[in-house]
Amino acid sequence: MAGILSYFLPKDKVFYGLFEEASDNLQLIAKKLQLVVHEPDFNKRAQLITEMEGIEHKNDEITHTIFVELGKNFITPFDREDIHALASALDDIADYIYAAAKKINFYKIDPISDQGIQKTADAIHDAVIAVKAAVMELRDLKNTQKIIECVIKINSIENNADDIFDMSIERLFESDVDAKELIKRREIYQVMEIATDKCEDAGNVIESIVVKYA
Amino acid sequence: MAGILSYFLPKDKVFYGLFEEASDNLQLIAKKLQLVVHEPDFNKRAQLITEMEGIEHKNDEITHTIFVELGKNFITPFDREDIHALASALDDIADYIYAAAKKINFYKIDPISDQGIQKTADAIHDAVIAVKAAVMELRDLKNTQKIIECVIKINSIENNADDIFDMSIERLFESDVDAKELIKRREIYQVMEIATDKCEDAGNVIESIVVKYA
Amino acid sequence: MAGILSYFLPKDKVFYGLFEEASDNLQLIAKKLQLVVHEPDFNKRAQLITEMEGIEHKNDEITHTIFVELGKNFITPFDREDIHALASALDDIADYIYAAAKKINFYKIDPISDQGIQKTADAIHDAVIAVKAAVMELRDLKNTQKIIECVIKINSIENNADDIFDMSIERLFESDVDAKELIKRREIYQVMEIATDKCEDAGNVIESIVVKYA
Repeated sequence: MAGILSYFLPKDKVFYGLFEEASDNLQLIAKKLQLVVHEPDFNKRAQLITEMEGIEHKNDEITHTIFVELGKNFITPFDREDIHALASALDDIADYIYAAAKKINFYKIDPISDQGIQKTADAIHDAVIAVKAAVMELRDLKNTQKIIECVIKINSIENNADDIFDMSIERLFESDVDAKELIKRREIYQVMEIATDKCEDAGNVIESIVVKYA
Repeated sequence: MAGILSYFLPKDKVFYGLFEEASDNLQLIAKKLQLVVHEPDFNKRAQLITEMEGIEHKNDEITHTIFVELGKNFITPFDREDIHALASALDDIADYIYAAAKKINFYKIDPISDQGIQKTADAIHDAVIAVKAAVMELRDLKNTQKIIECVIKINSIENNADDIFDMSIERLFESDVDAKELIKRREIYQVMEIATDKCEDAGNVIESIVVKYA
Repeated sequence: MAGILSYFLPKDKVFYGLFEEASDNLQLIAKKLQLVVHEPDFNKRAQLITEMEGIEHKNDEITHTIFVELGKNFITPFDREDIHALASALDDIADYIYAAAKKINFYKIDPISDQGIQKTADAIHDAVIAVKAAVMELRDLKNTQKIIECVIKINSIENNADDIFDMSIERLFESDVDAKELIKRREIYQVMEIATDKCEDAGNVIESIVVKYA
C-alpha cells in the first residue's frame, strides 16, 4: 500500500467515522424522544427537547462535513450517490425525531395518554438501534448476513409503525376530540411515522451498498 | 457483436422487461381503483383493495429487482440515474394508487357520491395507459414521435387532474361537511392527485431518455 | 483554447445564462407575491396572480431547457447532479411562490389582516434576492467570499421564516377561527414556508459547487 495509493486511502476512511458518529447521535436523540413521550411535566419535557436540539445540530454538522468531504475526495469507499443518500437519510431521521418532540410541546399535547405517540417512539428507537448496527458493519463489509438481518428488522419495524399509525388515526377520527386537537395529534403521528420511513431509507441505501460491494 | 460485448449486452436488456412488467401492473391496479370508486358495497371494495395490495407488492419486488440489477450491471441501456428515477416513479404510482383505494375504506368514505374521486380515478387510469405506452417504446427507441405524444398526453391529463382537484377542494370547503369529513376527503383527493404527479414524473424521465438516446 | 476544446467550451456556458434568467424571474415573481399579500381587492389580486402564472410558466421552460442541455452536453461547468439539483430548486421556488399566491384567492383568504402571510412574503423576497446574488457569482467563481455570505444569509432568512411560521400556526390554533379557515390558512403558511426551504436547497447546492470548484 505504498506509493500514490497510500495518499488517497486514509482520506476515504473519514466517511466511516462520520457515519458512526451520526448513528451514535441518532441513538441518543431517539432515547430522549422516549423520555419526552413518558414525561408528564411540560417544563421537564422542554428541557429534554432543548437537549435534543443540541444533538440535532451536531448531526447537521456531521452531515455538512460528509458533503464537504464528498466534494473534496475523488476516491470514496462506496458510490458517491450512496454516501450522499445515506448521509441525507441519517440527517432526516434526526430532523424528524426532533420535530416530533418539538411539536408535542409546541401544540401543548399531553403525550402520556396517547398510546399511538408512545408506541411509535418505541418503534423509532428500535429502528434507530438497527440502523446503527448496520452502519457499524460498513467499515469492513465481511458480515453481510448481519447487515441484511438489520435491514430486514428495520423494514419490519417500519411496517409495524405503519399499523400503529393507522390505528392511531382511526382512533383519533372516532374520538370526540375537536378538529383543532385532531389536526395537532395527526401532525405529530405523521412526523413520527416519517422518522421510521427515513430509517427504512437508510436501510435501503445500506442494502444497496452491500449488494454492490460485499 | 461477438466477443466481450456479447457478454454484457444480454444482461442490460433485463431492464426493459422489468419496466414493462411494472407498467402492466400499473394498468391492472389503476383499473381496480376505477372499480373501487364505483363500488357501493364496503366489503366488495375491501376485496378489490386486497387484490390491489397484491399488485402493489409485486411492483415493490420489481423495483427492488431493478435496483439490485442496477447495482450489478456496469453497462446499462440508459443513464443509471434515469433507470433509478423511472423505477422510482413507476413504484410511486402504484404506491399512491393503492394508498388512495385503501384510504377510501379506512376512512369509511362513500366514493359513489363523490365526483372528484371518480373523475380523478379515470384520470389516473388514462395517465397510466399513456405511461405504459411510452415504456413499451423504450426497448427500441425508433418511434420517438409516439413517445413524445405519450408524454404530452400524460402532462395534459395531469393538468386536467389538477383542475379536478381544485374544483373538488373548493366544493368540499363550500359544502356543509364537518371538519373531520373534510380532512378525510381532502387527504384522498391529495393522494390521488400525487398519483397523477408521479405519472408526470415518469413521463419526464422517459422524455429525458429520448432526448439523450433517440 | 484552439482545437477540440473550443468545440465544447462555448456550449457549456449556456447553463450560466439559464440560471441567471431563472433567478431574474424569481425576483419578479417574489415581488408580485409581496404585492398580492398587500392588495385588499380580490380582482386586483387575481390580475397579479395571472401575471405570476406567466412568470412561473417561463421558469418551467427554462428548467426544461436546462434538462435538455444537460442531456446533450457531455461537458458541463459543474457536476451534472449539481446542475440538476440547482435547476430543480430554482424551479421549485417559483412553483411554491406561485402556489402560495394562487391559494390566497382560491381559498378567498384576506391576506391584509394576516401578518404571518405578509412577513413570510417579505422573507421569501429577501431569500430570493440572496439566491440571485449567489447565482450571479457562479459564472466566474472568483468571489467565493460573497457567495458564502449569500448562502449564510439565505439560511438565516429561512430560520427566521421558520419562527414566523411557528408563531403564525400558534396564533392560528389559539384564535377562534373555525376548522375550515384554520386548514386553509395553515396550508398557505406551509406552502410559503416550503418556498423558503427551497431557497435554502438552492443555497446548499451553490455552496457545494463552491466547495468543489472554487
